[in-house]
Amino acid sequence: MPIRRVLVANRGEIALRVIRACRDLGIEAVQAHSSADADTLPVRLADASVEIGGPQAAESYLRGEAIIEAAKRMGADAIHPGYGFLSENAAFSDACAAAGLKFIGPTGAVIDMMGDKAAARSLARKAGVPVTPGSREPVPNYETAREVAREVGYPLLIKASAGGGGRGMRVVETEDKLRETLESAAREAEVAFGDGGVYIEKYLSDVRHVEVQVFGDGKKTLHFGERDCSVQRRHQKLVEESPSPALTQKLREEMAAAACALGDQVGYEGAGTVEFIVDAATQCFYFIEMNTRIQVEHPVTEEVTGHDLVKWQIQHAGGEAVDLHQADIGIDGHAIECRINAEDPDRGFLPKPGTIETFILPTGPGIRIDTHVFPGYKLPPYYDSLLAKVIARGRNRDEALARMRRALGEMKVEGVPTTIGFHQKLLNDPAFLEGRVHTRYLREQMYAGHPMQQML
Amino acid sequence: MPIRRVLVANRGEIALRVIRACRDLGIEAVQAHSSADADTLPVRLADASVEIGGPQAAESYLRGEAIIEAAKRMGADAIHPGYGFLSENAAFSDACAAAGLKFIGPTGAVIDMMGDKAAARSLARKAGVPVTPGSREPVPNYETAREVAREVGYPLLIKASAGGGGRGMRVVETEDKLRETLESAAREAEVAFGDGGVYIEKYLSDVRHVEVQVFGDGKKTLHFGERDCSVQRRHQKLVEESPSPALTQKLREEMAAAACALGDQVGYEGAGTVEFIVDAATQCFYFIEMNTRIQVEHPVTEEVTGHDLVKWQIQHAGGEAVDLHQADIGIDGHAIECRINAEDPDRGFLPKPGTIETFILPTGPGIRIDTHVFPGYKLPPYYDSLLAKVIARGRNRDEALARMRRALGEMKVEGVPTTIGFHQKLLNDPAFLEGRVHTRYLREQMYAGHPMQQML
Repeated sequence: MPIRRVLVANRGEIALRVIRACRDLGIEAVQAHSSADADTLPVRLADASVEIGGPQAAESYLRGEAIIEAAKRMGADAIHPGYGFLSENAAFSDACAAAGLKFIGPTGAVIDMMGDKAAARSLARKAGVPVTPGSREPVPNYETAREVAREVGYPLLIKASAGGGGRGMRVVETEDKLRETLESAAREAEVAFGDGGVYIEKYLSDVRHVEVQVFGDGKKTLHFGERDCSVQRRHQKLVEESPSPALTQKLREEMAAAACALGDQVGYEGAGTVEFIVDAATQCFYFIEMNTRIQVEHPVTEEVTGHDLVKWQIQHAGGEAVDLHQADIGIDGHAIECRINAEDPDRGFLPKPGTIETFILPTGPGIRIDTHVFPGYKLPPYYDSLLAKVIARGRNRDEALARMRRALGEMKVEGVPTTIGFHQKLLNDPAFLEGRVHTRYLREQMYAGHPMQQML
Repeated sequence: MPIRRVLVANRGEIALRVIRACRDLGIEAVQAHSSADADTLPVRLADASVEIGGPQAAESYLRGEAIIEAAKRMGADAIHPGYGFLSENAAFSDACAAAGLKFIGPTGAVIDMMGDKAAARSLARKAGVPVTPGSREPVPNYETAREVAREVGYPLLIKASAGGGGRGMRVVETEDKLRETLESAAREAEVAFGDGGVYIEKYLSDVRHVEVQVFGDGKKTLHFGERDCSVQRRHQKLVEESPSPALTQKLREEMAAAACALGDQVGYEGAGTVEFIVDAATQCFYFIEMNTRIQVEHPVTEEVTGHDLVKWQIQHAGGEAVDLHQADIGIDGHAIECRINAEDPDRGFLPKPGTIETFILPTGPGIRIDTHVFPGYKLPPYYDSLLAKVIARGRNRDEALARMRRALGEMKVEGVPTTIGFHQKLLNDPAFLEGRVHTRYLREQMYAGHPMQQML
């Protein structure tokens, strides 16, 4: 049955993004919000709103039961989880279904399969997708870990089975550090994910992060090209672009095919992202993980394909046949996204809430902004520090870069520090311009010797 | 020689548009401004600025000599005139050239040929482009006019030879009104253009206004598809879209070919627009005039073609070979522009200057804004009332319309009245949605019997 009313179980720019997709489809949107988010653009622009609890995420955006209860009370027939919060919570997906609500995302079973990183690696292997050498299962104890580590070779990575976003992740350079690192990673994973399982992977340095956007209808998985997210700070993406400036056409096609094969392996439904690391020198790629939700950086894909991914998510969840064919999905031009955060780049990217006094957005050709911020907005201290995503597209990478540089030069934010200056620096960095960065580039190259180096 | 520094001889959003194109090309921009425009975004965002006179246009933006002097003093090697003001002033184009400055637009000779509407009609006939039946020359006196009028038939149009924008234009329904209308049109033309010459054209009712964007390099004229600008109020465009919802593919191609033929006839250089009226019932089209400058509505063309027309203008003027081929110019999707003016639609679109207290722009997928306005901006009473151009694009017309509706619903302006509400009404009007409007649609249909009817 087509969806008539969506409860938006998220906040900030992604909540607004979902409301916009609903509006464009002629579907009503109900904004579920914390008490701290009562006076926000998503609440103002939704058809209705409902408060689900206190300012801390644990009191509101993470309370699955309260969200489901609010959805039923407000007459919603579907829930869009956005990204973060409950978006990759298998139990929440299943609880929505059990309550007769459409969860706009995969079933709990699929989320579980991909959420367990070791299980996902096994699935990838089964689908013929290359994975980094390492343990196939969580390592049960130090002795097994040491054995695996000797096979894989140092340096290696310890990663949380239930993890994501870099939490519970550690590099181990030599065997004498293995035991203590294993323990601290397991402890962090336990705290972050309620699951202390960790596994071991070969550590590849100087790799790029490249991910493939996929969309499945349960029968067939299609891809929308890749995004290159190699500019990172402590595993957090700062800049994303599509297409990747570092892939040959052959590699691009191989990676897209691998991503679709993994999707097909699980009968994937909806939007998802298959993440890889790429060794640009050898042109080898390895599966890292699959994210079973819309990503922060999805707009760059929308800009080069012309497809509205959030609309497709909602339409598919509503049972509409997704009239999409791989041949209709072309990549036209180039798009880049800079995440503008309320952080002080000169103080280790320290987040800084406050009141936005001035907020003049760049406009003009080739510029898209996704933001929930407006002049006078009070940035609450409870959530992430994302102010706006600035997306520039062009007929080619040079045009997109020039437009991004122009847009950042026009943008004016007063009241909180921002990362605009950092992005401006990056946009003049020769290695970035030439597409020669890797995921540790900021720390090891761009800021080498800089007082901030250790914070990157 | 490539251009290094452009003097921007205009104001408002088009000045900012030109500055952006310069920035994207790595060229410096100097903003020439009136004393009333000292504290504006174009002045802030240009590399330098120079005051050229008092607030009235006649004291500043229309003072060709002062502008040329300012350009030389500021080390500019080119002048971009934008639209309006001196953009179609042949003497100014020639004076720039005589002063060793590149005028970003055609030569005085070409501007003259197209500026004289009767001469332009002759040129069009020579190029095999259909023109409306009527006098080939300005009518020298009432007797000649009466004779032509009897041949052409009533109702008919009297138009200023030097005209544009609807000034000096009159409909004559019957012969007994001919003499007085002829005289009043000539008087208005004399005042507006310093040239009282008028000519007669067959008046076609229920026609659409469709124009073709062209670009010439002096050897060959290329086209970038058409724009449909049929939604007008007293010959002023309010909404524009590309492609036109009312053309067959055959008609579209014929019109594009006709526009290019006219351009080739004069060895046209730079961006230009060939305007036609189209009788949707008979699928006949007739040349009206050619505008030898960038148009207000150029963004819809940029959105569907992916080409930056202002960049092409500057690059061609700088002597760069314009590496463009007709086969590379595709039309992808659909784009619509709504002109948001500081006018009160309920009081006959009365312009209302004032201070912009709140200014929250719509953002998100498919939305481009061209504006020079920001919160706190004081809209001066001396110039036009354009606040912002909201441009929505989509994979098809329905998607573009839905996004426009969403964008206008998000936009929030306080401090002056705006035409947002009018556009929202139009976006729900069945005839507009079905592409069944003509240039007098507002007055004769949408507002039939409405107290405002006579103001439209």
